[in-house]
Amino acid sequence: MISEKMMELGKKRSVIREIFEYGNKRRQEIGAENVFDFSLGNPSIPAPDVVKETMLRLINEKDPVKLHGYTSAQGDLSVRSAIAEDIKNRFGAASGADLIYMTCGAAASLTISLNALVRDGDEVIVLAPFFPEYRVFAEKAGAKVRVVKCREEDLQIDFSALQEAINEKTKAIIVNSPNNPSGVVLSEETIIELSKLLERKQNEYKTEIYVIADEPYRELVYGGIEVPYIPNYYDNTLVCYSFSKSLSLPGERIGYIFVSPKVNNCSDVYAAVCGAGRALGFVCAPSLLQYTVAENLGKTANIEIYDKNRNILYDALTEYGYELARPDGAFYLFMKSPEEDANAFCERAKKYEILIVPGDDFGFEGYVRISYCVSTEMILKSLDGFKKLIEEYRG
Amino acid sequence: MISEKMMELGKKRSVIREIFEYGNKRRQEIGAENVFDFSLGNPSIPAPDVVKETMLRLINEKDPVKLHGYTSAQGDLSVRSAIAEDIKNRFGAASGADLIYMTCGAAASLTISLNALVRDGDEVIVLAPFFPEYRVFAEKAGAKVRVVKCREEDLQIDFSALQEAINEKTKAIIVNSPNNPSGVVLSEETIIELSKLLERKQNEYKTEIYVIADEPYRELVYGGIEVPYIPNYYDNTLVCYSFSKSLSLPGERIGYIFVSPKVNNCSDVYAAVCGAGRALGFVCAPSLLQYTVAENLGKTANIEIYDKNRNILYDALTEYGYELARPDGAFYLFMKSPEEDANAFCERAKKYEILIVPGDDFGFEGYVRISYCVSTEMILKSLDGFKKLIEEYRG
Repeated sequence: MISEKMMELGKKRSVIREIFEYGNKRRQEIGAENVFDFSLGNPSIPAPDVVKETMLRLINEKDPVKLHGYTSAQGDLSVRSAIAEDIKNRFGAASGADLIYMTCGAAASLTISLNALVRDGDEVIVLAPFFPEYRVFAEKAGAKVRVVKCREEDLQIDFSALQEAINEKTKAIIVNSPNNPSGVVLSEETIIELSKLLERKQNEYKTEIYVIADEPYRELVYGGIEVPYIPNYYDNTLVCYSFSKSLSLPGERIGYIFVSPKVNNCSDVYAAVCGAGRALGFVCAPSLLQYTVAENLGKTANIEIYDKNRNILYDALTEYGYELARPDGAFYLFMKSPEEDANAFCERAKKYEILIVPGDDFGFEGYVRISYCVSTEMILKSLDGFKKLIEEYRG
Repeated sequence: MISEKMMELGKKRSVIREIFEYGNKRRQEIGAENVFDFSLGNPSIPAPDVVKETMLRLINEKDPVKLHGYTSAQGDLSVRSAIAEDIKNRFGAASGADLIYMTCGAAASLTISLNALVRDGDEVIVLAPFFPEYRVFAEKAGAKVRVVKCREEDLQIDFSALQEAINEKTKAIIVNSPNNPSGVVLSEETIIELSKLLERKQNEYKTEIYVIADEPYRELVYGGIEVPYIPNYYDNTLVCYSFSKSLSLPGERIGYIFVSPKVNNCSDVYAAVCGAGRALGFVCAPSLLQYTVAENLGKTANIEIYDKNRNILYDALTEYGYELARPDGAFYLFMKSPEEDANAFCERAKKYEILIVPGDDFGFEGYVRISYCVSTEMILKSLDGFKKLIEEYRG
């Protein structure tokens, strides 16, 4: 009698969650120090000290009625202005406070964007491997989801597959770079080719096809790599940003949507974003956090730790004989399973108390995700298990 | 091509917002001290000092990775346990951590509850006068909204009208006491009669009819009045709570949903709440605020100021000849317009720089809402204008 879809969503734990709960059980049984849990994408490094200092100063000095009061639904004007300025300065992209909409984090950025754009029967394309909640968000917004697998060799976009998936109902494509679960950054070449394809298809069908650029990992890149800023390549782009990963504030729920001024009828699209935020019950983004992030734009937590973890783990796993690419961003390794069934491999890893997530959950079979947003100490202790694990396959 | 409904919602300002923007214009033109703006329901008193102290202590002492990290989607277990305990202690109602779902405030509590319960084609009843966003939230969840007007003499429920509005499609009724915009508290007699009617109708149609008790103003009551706790009277009740008004934290977006254990199949309903929160993109409620409110349950900002404002305004307006009831709660007066057209009356009030909201927007014509969550000084300065305003009608 109630919404069965919502009930099922509430009852069905994600595979990641199942593994994490299994980890909790094992931690109780054998001690946390003996469980090597690589299952969650939960930042392990603290927010930078400047964030703490900003919060303390705001709470001590700002008028509490203003600090904790409603901001406008789009977000405080000074906050939106600071973000628009930051976008101009860092990416050279045209921007403006009236195109920024503050949100309760990346998930809210996505649901609001999808509900703003999608009409019943529209299709939304996701590129596998992909964050599984994309399907939940897009379907709730009334869209049909089409999955397009990336090229196995480098996880860049497979354009012939993408071309076949686009039709007159295609409303949007979600692009997530750096990617969860693979850590891969889409190259400038890929973004240019994507833009050309989408423009051609827009002309062919006389439609608008929006890129929803989901960018919570933008600042988490290593080796000086550049992440192309999609609004500089493709006009119909909405950027969904979150400060969860860059500032290690995932529980605080703060992010934004940026509607590029090059979007066709951008003020209509921005209005639809405001309307969707309103109808979904988002009133405004948390005010203290709005003021806090505005003073810390472009800063990050100490991500050198992630880089160090990445290198230790990548070097060791490669040495042991695992097949994987060294990812440029986020805090994930995406590794080929030594046996075809990644689920079976993940089960076998439990023998060594190693908890990793099968790629099936991300729409990409035969691979596993290893989250290295964990302590370096845990990684070092886990290596012997990883070595013995692959040796089993040489039997 | 995008969602026209969302675009319209984003473009169409609410009447309240229009009046507030007009006030901004006048404040610039003649100075803020000369504009008597009673349009917004925005708490005017600061959060209590204990809230500030709690926040500072948490930020200074708690591990930042934990403090700002994801909580479980339902909310941190210790926070939910504290709230469940508080419900037991204050209202004598059975409760439990596994029936509490932390939200980003009252609007989120409502959208999540509605999306959990409503299936396409279901109907949701609202009791006029009502907060206009109820319609937006319920329609977005797929419901048809039926408006049932309260009795004009005391704004208690008109049971013959309500009875006629209930049918086999009725999924829920939103009950808001203390009420926005009227400040009226529904009496125990009303709640008992409501329960009986709904139980009878559930039996008649073999359906479940849920009460969604929207209670952001629960603690804002004066003169020692008791607000009946609906789960103690009617089984199929979900309580939507927010700390926005009680702790003067409206911008921080923190509240909860409590699924009464007496709800039929309560664990299914709770699962649907979890699923709806997930699908709408709410991940978790802001973590710092979760921990903060858990330490300040049952506390309120200094609401004596509201009580004082209420009495000054009520006494003066009555003396001048206006017709209104002395409301028991919230921070609103609901006053009969001296002319039939409340819009015309509100326009006329602008001559005296008095900004009030016509009841039409709340589904109740011929009345106006006066928000007294303002400075006492402003109220005192406005009285002369109110006096002259009613004298115009005696001309």
